[in-house]
Amino acid sequence: MSDSGVFIHPQAIVESAAIGSGTRIWALAHVCKGAALGADCNVGEGCYIEAGSRIGDRVTVKNGAMIWDGVTIGDDAFVGPGVVFTNDVRPRSPRLGAVRDKYAATGWRAPTTVGRGASLGANCTISCGLSIGDFAMIGAGAVVTADIPAYVLAFGNPARGHGYVCVCGEKLPSFQKGVTRCSSCSLRYRKSGKAVVAGE
Amino acid sequence: MSDSGVFIHPQAIVESAAIGSGTRIWALAHVCKGAALGADCNVGEGCYIEAGSRIGDRVTVKNGAMIWDGVTIGDDAFVGPGVVFTNDVRPRSPRLGAVRDKYAATGWRAPTTVGRGASLGANCTISCGLSIGDFAMIGAGAVVTADIPAYVLAFGNPARGHGYVCVCGEKLPSFQKGVTRCSSCSLRYRKSGKAVVAGE
Amino acid sequence: MSDSGVFIHPQAIVESAAIGSGTRIWALAHVCKGAALGADCNVGEGCYIEAGSRIGDRVTVKNGAMIWDGVTIGDDAFVGPGVVFTNDVRPRSPRLGAVRDKYAATGWRAPTTVGRGASLGANCTISCGLSIGDFAMIGAGAVVTADIPAYVLAFGNPARGHGYVCVCGEKLPSFQKGVTRCSSCSLRYRKSGKAVVAGE
Repeated sequence: MSDSGVFIHPQAIVESAAIGSGTRIWALAHVCKGAALGADCNVGEGCYIEAGSRIGDRVTVKNGAMIWDGVTIGDDAFVGPGVVFTNDVRPRSPRLGAVRDKYAATGWRAPTTVGRGASLGANCTISCGLSIGDFAMIGAGAVVTADIPAYVLAFGNPARGHGYVCVCGEKLPSFQKGVTRCSSCSLRYRKSGKAVVAGE
Repeated sequence: MSDSGVFIHPQAIVESAAIGSGTRIWALAHVCKGAALGADCNVGEGCYIEAGSRIGDRVTVKNGAMIWDGVTIGDDAFVGPGVVFTNDVRPRSPRLGAVRDKYAATGWRAPTTVGRGASLGANCTISCGLSIGDFAMIGAGAVVTADIPAYVLAFGNPARGHGYVCVCGEKLPSFQKGVTRCSSCSLRYRKSGKAVVAGE
Repeated sequence: MSDSGVFIHPQAIVESAAIGSGTRIWALAHVCKGAALGADCNVGEGCYIEAGSRIGDRVTVKNGAMIWDGVTIGDDAFVGPGVVFTNDVRPRSPRLGAVRDKYAATGWRAPTTVGRGASLGANCTISCGLSIGDFAMIGAGAVVTADIPAYVLAFGNPARGHGYVCVCGEKLPSFQKGVTRCSSCSLRYRKSGKAVVAGE
């Protein structure tokens, strides 16, 4: 535990100074210079967090997850074990002559945003240039190729929505006249146009 | 090679004392205190075996596999490279206020059992609270979301059964009047209700 | 940087002497004795490159990819993060008595070939005994179970073709009377039987 209250395992590789207090980084994880991590996060063994990625507070990043430049993750999110992000829609080896100009420039990255409290299941794959909404839940092994709205439960390859989940993680009952309520924690939800809004 | 005949690569992290003789653990693998491993296993590079998991004898765990608290793996099983288990049906970041009670308790883990001699193909994902039967074979890249009976060959996302495999790994010919025989090793099988029974 | 112009991160494990000049190998990657790597490659953190695999020049291998004995990768290819190859069609634990003869012999490996300039998307899984053609592009999270011809864009589980991509990575317009031209780099393509040929 350093002076700032950050725990860094002796076998981690941490080059970033932008790490919030209370955050723990475990063995063989690598947080690159230029990556920003919030407070009270837990970064599991073997994760790779690249320069240019931004991670909020209280985020859990399980073992082996890979987070690249261009990825922004909101507070309280869960990134499951083995989750792989991307940042290039049509990747080629940058060493290939025909694409040298593309990779010499900076515009090739397609950014991805993960909302507050969202969960990305184990070993899922996140294509880029897309957005995953607050408290959405992506099933284990899913391949996300399009935006996933807030509170949506999505799984499969490609990932498709299959109902809604509560902030607490439980599946929500069907909406009746545009409203529903979590059977576990009683939080209310209503539809507002195509979106779902909580707590009202 | 230690006195007990366990080989631990100098770059492995091994905190468990419950490791059977003849087992080999390779570089960058981590066997946590409280994990139990049988004899004559081979644990590949970069694997993570968490406290509370139990692994039988003669199990092959290929590189990068992640095995969590609540997972039990039978003798002679094959866990392919990059296989990711899970133990939480609807994960949220335990740091999120709304779920602090869930993770402060101990009942949130959904256990998973892998039968004797079963094979889990490369990079497959295993949801939790389920059972994979003896000598079942899960295809590479599959996402297992439900029980897989003994000897069943399953693949896809979600994984579905596509016939049966023999103990030796070969695909079995179709059952005729409830019986079949492996064309490679001649082992006989018969249907017993919904189950398949070998060697009779 | 060694005398031969190869960069090996101090935390990499490199046992092979067959590494071309200009190639860089990053932390926690392992290039086994007997693996052959060309010149000007980039091997990301945590990759595993087994004895018996052969990799061409200017290949990008992103973090955590696993490349086994029997895999051959052409010049200029892109192997995305977390890509898992295989080399055994019906794997069992080699420690299981019933399959000891299979694994004591050498014929059980099914080789796989990746063509020049091909791209394998993040976290995809490559079954074995198959061929991926020159400049083919495999989508993130795909599971490749059959040959993929040159220039084909394939994704899903199992991976299926969904049109063609250019050498430069852009999706090609539909063929009209057997010919098309990239709207980005103007390279021409024509159909020749079932194959696609570039640059004529």
